[in-house]
Amino acid sequence: MKFEIMRDKLLDGLSDVMKAISQKVAIPILTGIKIEVDEKGMTLTGSDSDITICTFIPAEDNGEQIIQVVEKGSIVLQAKVFSEIVRKLPTNEVTIEVANGLQTHIQSGKSEFHLIGLDPEDYPVLPEVKDDYLFSLPADLMKSIIRETVFAVSQQETRPVLTGVLWEVKDGGLACIATDSHRLARRLTIPEDMPEVPFSVVIPGKSLQELNKILPDNGELVDIVIADQQVLFKTRGVLFYSRLLEGNYPDTSRLIPLEYKTSVTVNGRLLLQAIDRASLLAREERNNIVRFSANEGKVIEISSNSPEVGKVEELVEAIGVTGEELNISFSAKYMMDALKAIDGQDITIQFTGAMRPFILKSVDDDSILQLILPVRTY
Amino acid sequence: MKFEIMRDKLLDGLSDVMKAISQKVAIPILTGIKIEVDEKGMTLTGSDSDITICTFIPAEDNGEQIIQVVEKGSIVLQAKVFSEIVRKLPTNEVTIEVANGLQTHIQSGKSEFHLIGLDPEDYPVLPEVKDDYLFSLPADLMKSIIRETVFAVSQQETRPVLTGVLWEVKDGGLACIATDSHRLARRLTIPEDMPEVPFSVVIPGKSLQELNKILPDNGELVDIVIADQQVLFKTRGVLFYSRLLEGNYPDTSRLIPLEYKTSVTVNGRLLLQAIDRASLLAREERNNIVRFSANEGKVIEISSNSPEVGKVEELVEAIGVTGEELNISFSAKYMMDALKAIDGQDITIQFTGAMRPFILKSVDDDSILQLILPVRTY
Repeated sequence: MKFEIMRDKLLDGLSDVMKAISQKVAIPILTGIKIEVDEKGMTLTGSDSDITICTFIPAEDNGEQIIQVVEKGSIVLQAKVFSEIVRKLPTNEVTIEVANGLQTHIQSGKSEFHLIGLDPEDYPVLPEVKDDYLFSLPADLMKSIIRETVFAVSQQETRPVLTGVLWEVKDGGLACIATDSHRLARRLTIPEDMPEVPFSVVIPGKSLQELNKILPDNGELVDIVIADQQVLFKTRGVLFYSRLLEGNYPDTSRLIPLEYKTSVTVNGRLLLQAIDRASLLAREERNNIVRFSANEGKVIEISSNSPEVGKVEELVEAIGVTGEELNISFSAKYMMDALKAIDGQDITIQFTGAMRPFILKSVDDDSILQLILPVRTY
Repeated sequence: MKFEIMRDKLLDGLSDVMKAISQKVAIPILTGIKIEVDEKGMTLTGSDSDITICTFIPAEDNGEQIIQVVEKGSIVLQAKVFSEIVRKLPTNEVTIEVANGLQTHIQSGKSEFHLIGLDPEDYPVLPEVKDDYLFSLPADLMKSIIRETVFAVSQQETRPVLTGVLWEVKDGGLACIATDSHRLARRLTIPEDMPEVPFSVVIPGKSLQELNKILPDNGELVDIVIADQQVLFKTRGVLFYSRLLEGNYPDTSRLIPLEYKTSVTVNGRLLLQAIDRASLLAREERNNIVRFSANEGKVIEISSNSPEVGKVEELVEAIGVTGEELNISFSAKYMMDALKAIDGQDITIQFTGAMRPFILKSVDDDSILQLILPVRTY
């Protein structure tokens, strides 16, 4: 293998692939990046066996020569060292050559590296994904869906299926749901190009967080291919594979209350700031619980009391309060996460009593629903 | 105590004082900040018993009313909670009132905090510093001096005096010296306003690092008062006290070679980048040693070899090489630290053989000297 490449393009490709690299992998070769070069261009592959990322750098792009391929071939190089070397090379022209088996020579300006590569034959083959259930979503919509749901997955491995986000197509729409059994986030959307067959898969939260870092912030379409144990997200130049979680995702539809006794409409940003302040003292005592009171007036009171540190009272002017008087306590963190997901819009909170789950929605938009279980404090 | 203050001014003062606050203090009251208010303004004090920082916020500044004092007094409040509260308050007007002993009421907009304060009578009194040895330096010069020396202090407590920087006035100049016994950094300067009596003190490296964060990046004069066991740095509005280290600082003057056998003049930035790259492989094996070769030509070779990872060779075009041919090995980290202290200027490196300490100096400026002990590798 021998080729010359522009350092900045190589660096772009590496930075995507590096997101799949973990230092804690069971298979030593996965600490490496697989490099394959032929006359069409360069393919980089990185994997931690849960996530696999492939990027393709074309030899020519828009008439610009990016790679000059002298001899095609492949090699696996230590990911961390290789990406650091590329980042620090002195010029934008880099020549990479593999000779005498796995000896890899990297040259740029007056800098010469000789790395000992690993055998690409030992690198695991990519998961096979047939084009079974294929549909697509704009990248920016996918980023929103991920941001609005993934924070609510369980951080505990006791019920592994809850560490993922359920993606379910039925009744003509896609529902994305995450819950850690104390709160739930649900995002509904109707893809322009719906998959033909209903499906239901659970994608690991960690995979979605890494995918979110790679997706561009624009309307470019991402193809989503779902197979038995894998999901593949395809964008221009990047293939992102994730394994799926096994096990039955719980039926959450019965959790969501259909009626309410108290409804509060308020600006989400003002409420978020007030809860952030109210939780400052609660955080010190590690319970992080705040109290929320609404009565016939339009002023909501948020308070918190920590015997050793002190107490705090916040008043927030609501846009409207209807229904029964209410005193309820909940985790400030869960409420702040939910409000951040709804992103500062005016919101409606619907309560069915101090001991029942309550829901948050944007005033303008029914597609995002956040549900939180209250905490008993008295 | 009762007063009203502008939130942003309080925040500025707090951010300086917070640099003295540590969560790992032996005296519980030092997790707090002491607040004193009288008709002239507000004094904030924070301390970890090694470092003490006082800031003063005047009631009126340039005709602008910053504090409205209703009743003077003092209180100690938990530093972390208090500074987070102030940072997040909803409006720029803050009222702070102490009533019923230590009950502290903080109010801003529709936000009300009640904190349980600590008794200011229990707060340690400030170190007494008589105006014994007083001189001054511009703040930006002090920042340079700190940056050029403090990195070379010892990180180990085996010889506590080496964890500090020696500041010594004699022969009409100030010498600042740090060494961890593997390398040494020395900065000479002649203060415009020299102290009248020679002195020699050792200031903890950590104190200088915190002081560096507080000093403004301009020519404003900093008064330096040295007493028996304390040094006090005075800037406009801030008093920074540090304890001094006890024990005799070793005589380092004999370490510095007065003649040389090989002299290399080279651009510091180019050499730094080449060493950074050459050490990429060495870092993986945790020895971090690079080899440096100079012969009659003007090209320096820097190389490193890690049996399991690979090897690297860097060529750097020197401005000039004179004297004997040389092959020497040293810590890439020490060399990079020294080159960063000299900050990208053209430098001269003077060697007296592969096993003897060598020195680095700026070509333009004799005031900074960096010394490094080589490593035996063969």
